[in-house]
Order: sequence, then structure tokens, then C-alpha cells
Amino acid sequence: MKKANKKLNAAIIIIGNEILSGRTQDINVVIISKWLNDLGVKLEEVRLIPDIENIIIKTVNEIRKKFKYVFTTGGIGPTHDDITSKSISKAFKVKYCYHPEAYKILENYYEKGKFNKGRKRMAKTPKNASLIYNPSSAAPGFFIKNVYCLPGVPSILKSMLGGLNNKIAGGNKILSRTLSLRTVESEIAIPLEKVQNKFKNLEIGSYPFFKQGKIGVSLVIRSDKLKLIEKCTNEIIKFITKKKIKILVNK
Amino acid sequence: MKKANKKLNAAIIIIGNEILSGRTQDINVVIISKWLNDLGVKLEEVRLIPDIENIIIKTVNEIRKKFKYVFTTGGIGPTHDDITSKSISKAFKVKYCYHPEAYKILENYYEKGKFNKGRKRMAKTPKNASLIYNPSSAAPGFFIKNVYCLPGVPSILKSMLGGLNNKIAGGNKILSRTLSLRTVESEIAIPLEKVQNKFKNLEIGSYPFFKQGKIGVSLVIRSDKLKLIEKCTNEIIKFITKKKIKILVNK
Repeated sequence: MKKANKKLNAAIIIIGNEILSGRTQDINVVIISKWLNDLGVKLEEVRLIPDIENIIIKTVNEIRKKFKYVFTTGGIGPTHDDITSKSISKAFKVKYCYHPEAYKILENYYEKGKFNKGRKRMAKTPKNASLIYNPSSAAPGFFIKNVYCLPGVPSILKSMLGGLNNKIAGGNKILSRTLSLRTVESEIAIPLEKVQNKFKNLEIGSYPFFKQGKIGVSLVIRSDKLKLIEKCTNEIIKFITKKKIKILVNK
Repeated sequence: MKKANKKLNAAIIIIGNEILSGRTQDINVVIISKWLNDLGVKLEEVRLIPDIENIIIKTVNEIRKKFKYVFTTGGIGPTHDDITSKSISKAFKVKYCYHPEAYKILENYYEKGKFNKGRKRMAKTPKNASLIYNPSSAAPGFFIKNVYCLPGVPSILKSMLGGLNNKIAGGNKILSRTLSLRTVESEIAIPLEKVQNKFKNLEIGSYPFFKQGKIGVSLVIRSDKLKLIEKCTNEIIKFITKKKIKILVNK
């Protein structure tokens, strides 16, 4: 992993009517976000947009200026609704054409005579894009400048992320500690806010949960500094103990 | 349900570091989107943003001008990271203050002496906002103009949507038909594109799937006109039959 100085943030653009319509549950945000955490890159925004060319172009051109890394998911298959590559070409004002290496990969992958027009579409990228190799099903993704285009199928997307590790200049791994408590949020809100105000460079999230008929609250403390997390956790445990609240998970 | 003439679209703003960090899998988009389908309102964009006041304000002010309905999820609980109500007040440039009815609801809900400072926070809304009642856990959501603020916990959010049915001016229910086929996308891409070009006012989505080691493709045809869906389905079945592709699901 390379080291970088610029703000190490990222955004995801999910391209797909099937997610907007409620038909398909997106799980790619979680997959990409966890992978980015390990690389020390913070996911700061996600946009979910339809398969409409001018919306893709506008969104990509807005987002790629705001964030160091932009990932798109979906729309790089062989069917009529797969318009990501073409739209990204237009966003960058470059030709949309066959990528010689992608063409070869796909030509080799399919049996003779089976590399049809639909499949050939998957060999097209913005001119001079770099490929993201696909160990699952051959058809590659690609990147151009800071925009990385990945497929929508989670298992394939996941298999392709590993190949990007040395392309992403990361920072310190973002660490987290979870304290799950047998309480309700409103019982701890005030002392918790005081602790958060003391630790400005660390993020404390508070999330109520319902499990097997019982309620509780998970506190998640996130930072790239382990010592800071430990110090903060101790302060929380202090007031939790005083209030005689049971700690269910501390890890 | 009221009837409306304006473009019946909607956007969701998911407010929550826990979703961006990959810790929590969002499922509210699917819940809200399916509910909107039944009301005849099309979800056209989703934004996922962090718990940061100026980002919430900017996003809400941008999105509420673009869409007829805007739903926010998350950030209306009692803890320090629950800043949605305050941020929405600032977005609309109105006071952030106790909502008399919300205050009463919560005061009645908690035992005497238990309506503490943290809990009182949940009674605050933008001045003159209308309440969205909460049959699960008392603490209400609210709406101001076209922005509807809901909690992040899916079970509670779901229980609150019913109360909004008569507030949302809807259109014709958006219908869909799914054809699941034992094939791969690239086998059907070209004839499918021809069918899509014939039916401009209808949306055909193509989604590869992997189930129990077998691959297939689901085609989803969406429109508010049943006859159009049927006509389109027949055209697809025609070329599918010619290609001797097995239909697994047709419903």
C-alpha cells in the first residue's frame, strides 16, 4: 500500500434501477466500506442513482472533484441497461472504444464463436482506461483517473477489490471498539455527550438494538489511534459502572 | 391517498456514520422504496451522508428543491450524534424548539421522573413541523414542507410509514413482472435491447444471479400500465422460446 498525504476520503456511486426500485438489497456499500477501513480511507458519501446517462455523467463529474477516490458499482455488463462505461467516457470527454487488453481477455475466455456482440460490449471502456482484473468471470472493470468502475454483483465485486490494494494510496487503518450495553440511549445520552466533547478527534456512535426481545445500545468508538480509543472507552466505562449498567460486549 | 399532477418522485437521505463505516447494513431504502411503489411514487435518488451538520443542511436544501418528496432516516434519537432535527431547522431557517404535542406524548410515555434531558431532546423539532406518529416507541418523527424525517431503526421506521399514507399524494401503483431465465446476460443482450427500444415508456432491467451453484438472469419489467407489461413480456418470451432458453420464474 502506498502512502498519501491528501485527505484520504472516498465516495461510492451505486448505479442501478434495481436498487432504487427496492427489488435488490445493496450490500456493496458494506463490502467496499470495510475494505476501505482496512486501507485507512474514509468513505464519506454514497449516491444511489438510476441507469440514466445524463445523471451518471453529472454525478460522476461532481463527485470526482470532491473526493480522492470514487467507486462506481453496476452497469458494466453486456445488456442495454449497462451504460456505465459509455457514460463515464462522456463524463471524461474521451472516446468509448474497445480496450485491446480487455478484448483479448474476453476473446480467450469464451469458446470460439461465442464471443458475440453483447459480450464484446464488455470489452469497451473509456479510451486509455486501466483495467481492474476480474478473477471470477473474466469481464474486467476499469479505472480512469480517480474513478474506479466495478460490477454490481457483490461476489464478483469482492473478488476484484484485492487487485486494487496497491493502487489505492492509504493511511492508517481505522480502528473501532464496540461496547454493547443493556440500557436505552436516553439513559446515557448526557454523560456520553460529555465524553464525546472531551475527545474531539474521535467518533462515538450510539446505536439502539433489539435482539431476541431485549433492547440495548451499542456504542462504537472509531479512530486511527488505538490509545485514544482505549482512553475514551475507559471514560465511558466509568459512568456506565456508576449507573450500574450491564456491559454485554466489549471488543 | 390523494391524487397529484406534479412529477411523483422522491429521494431518501440516509444520515448515519454507522452506515458509511460499514458497521450497519442499511435496509431502510428497500422498505421505503417498496412502500413508495405501492403509492405510485418513484424513488429516484438516495444519498448517504455522515452526521455532520453542514453536510445535512446542504444536502437537504439541494434535494428538497429537486424532488417532490424527501425522506430522511436516522439521527432523531436522544444522543449527541442525533442532530437531524437541529440541522433541518437550520436548513429551513426556523427555530429548533420543543414541539408541544411531541413533548406531551413523551411526557406521558415515560414514568414520572424518567423524562430526563436526553429524552426531552426527542421532543424538539423545527418550529411548526407536523408530527409523524410512532406506534412502536412513542418518540415521533416530523415533517416540514416536503421533508419527512424518520428514525433509523428499521422496525420503528416501518411502523411509522402507515401513518403517512394519506399525507403522500400518490399516482398509479408501479407494477412489475419478473422473468427468471436459465441463461447468461450476453446470450440475450441484443434481442432484449431491441425489445427495450420498442417499449420506450417501460423499464426493462436485466440482473444476473447465482443461486445454488447455478447461474441465471432475471428480467424485471416495470411500468404503471399492466397491458404494456404484458405486451412486452410476450415479446421477450417469443425470442426466449426461439433460443430454447428455460424460463424458471414468470410472475
